Parts: sequence; structure tokens; C-alpha cells
Amino acid sequence: MNIEIERKFLVKSLDFKTESFDKKHIKQGYLNSDKNRTVRIRVADTRAFITIKGKSNKNGTSRFEWEKEIHVSEAEALLLLCEPNIIEKTRFLIQVGKHVFEVDEFAGNNQGLVVAEIELSSEEEGFEKPNWLSKEVTGDLKYYNSNISKLPFTSWK
Amino acid sequence: MNIEIERKFLVKSLDFKTESFDKKHIKQGYLNSDKNRTVRIRVADTRAFITIKGKSNKNGTSRFEWEKEIHVSEAEALLLLCEPNIIEKTRFLIQVGKHVFEVDEFAGNNQGLVVAEIELSSEEEGFEKPNWLSKEVTGDLKYYNSNISKLPFTSWK
Repeated sequence: MNIEIERKFLVKSLDFKTESFDKKHIKQGYLNSDKNRTVRIRVADTRAFITIKGKSNKNGTSRFEWEKEIHVSEAEALLLLCEPNIIEKTRFLIQVGKHVFEVDEFAGNNQGLVVAEIELSSEEEGFEKPNWLSKEVTGDLKYYNSNISKLPFTSWK
Repeated sequence: MNIEIERKFLVKSLDFKTESFDKKHIKQGYLNSDKNRTVRIRVADTRAFITIKGKSNKNGTSRFEWEKEIHVSEAEALLLLCEPNIIEKTRFLIQVGKHVFEVDEFAGNNQGLVVAEIELSSEEEGFEKPNWLSKEVTGDLKYYNSNISKLPFTSWK
């Protein structure tokens, strides 16, 4: 368990794909998508995890997180118990300076949404901004995957 | 993961205590207490577990269950994220014929509530009824621990 410090951005071009050194297919659902406590089941290619997150701090950058690897077969059974709307996305990893950006290209009823995240070791840590990075959306609740599962991108206006 | 088949009873005397071959102190909270999916964090003496249960079948006897042991220190951190009202109880194990009854004597704001459970291998399996066993409450939602945590016994009328 640890405190996760993350910043989140929109993405203005698909140039990140050619710079990516790794990608995986992610399928995830929520056993709870409450803002005070989320319980997520994720299958990422051939591995699966249960992840519990607490409430974000006031600027949305840091959050308690606990994660445990589980069997893919267990995760598939638990996904059936999850709230409606399983999220599917491809996650690209891109090295930018000393940091790795995770860029999620969503599919299904979130088609068109692309979000980049960077994990930092402190709230003050600086980082290099690639040219495909757009507006920061850290702390904007509608970009939380737990909320995207309830209110998918294609339904936004 | 498995399907849990259980029947639940009230208890009319404390005679079960002298017949008990083991007991442990249990503290548990819920990351989700929804009837379709509960996520429970439990510390039982020196061990801890995360348990996910699905919805009961129509007579309340069987239910999908998935459980994983976790560190007590992790469980203590996760209990802080749980919904209000952590349940505390002492669980007594009593051998009755070929079966083991688990009898929970609740504490705190559930003081006075004592419930016995028996796990069966099929819905039809018979079992011996000890003299301290009272009315069956299988399937009665208000006796679910996930509901007791929301509406404690001392508030019942």
C-alpha cells in the first residue's frame, strides 16, 4: 500500500504511439465506484489485479492505493460481479526524459477519449512535457475511470 | 472462489460457549455493502482477509464467494477506508455431529445479537440441531453482516 501521486492530461495527437515502447490491452470493472473508496478489478493482457483506492486529496494529485495480483480466472469471475459498463482501453508506455507516461486510448463507449498520466514522487516534482500533451485534467472527477464507467465519454456533451 | 451454501439461525441460550472448541475475535468492515456485491475486510485474531461476495440466490442459501488472505497491517489500513460502523464480534466454533457451527456473539452497537451459521455442501443436506439453536433466519437481509454494519442491532425495534 502506498500514496499515489499522479497528474493527468488530455492528449492532442496520436504521435505518442510511435514513441511508445510497450502497450497492453486493459479490461477493468468496479466493485465500488464511490468517491471515498473504489474497488477495481483489472485484467491487463495476461495478468490481473484487485486495486483499492481511497479519496483523493483536495487538488486531486495524491490518493491511498492498495493493490494485489490475482489469477486472471478469478478476475474474470469478479468482473461478472462488477457494476455495469466494463472499461476497455489500450495503454501505451512512453519514456519522456526521466519519466514514463501512461497513455490510455479508450474503446467501446469511451471511443475517442485519450488520457495521459504521469506518476511523480512528490507533488512538487517537475517533468518534461511532450508535444502531444494537452490540457491538464488532474482532479477533474469526470476523467476518473470509476466515473467514466458510470458516465461514458460518448455520452458527454 | 466458490459458491457458499449457508444457513443461519438465531440462538436462544449461551450454552454453546461451553461446547465451543475454538474462538476468535473478529473485526470487519465493508468497502461495499451493496446487495449485489459486498467487499469485506476482516481481521480475525492474527490473520486478515479480503472477501468478495455476490448476490444470494432467491432463498438466501447460496452465494458466490472469493477470498484472499492479506497482511493484518494492510487490513488495518483498508479498514480506515471502509464504510462507517466496523463490526466487532467473537466467533465460537462448535462441533455438532458431522458439522461445525460458527456462532457469532456481537459486541459494540450490536451487543445482544447472537447468530449461528452452518455451511453445507448442498442445499438439501441435513444436519443435527443443537438445543441452543432457535429460529432460522437464512435469507433475512437484516441479519447480513453487511446490513448490520449499516443498521446495527441496538437500533432495531
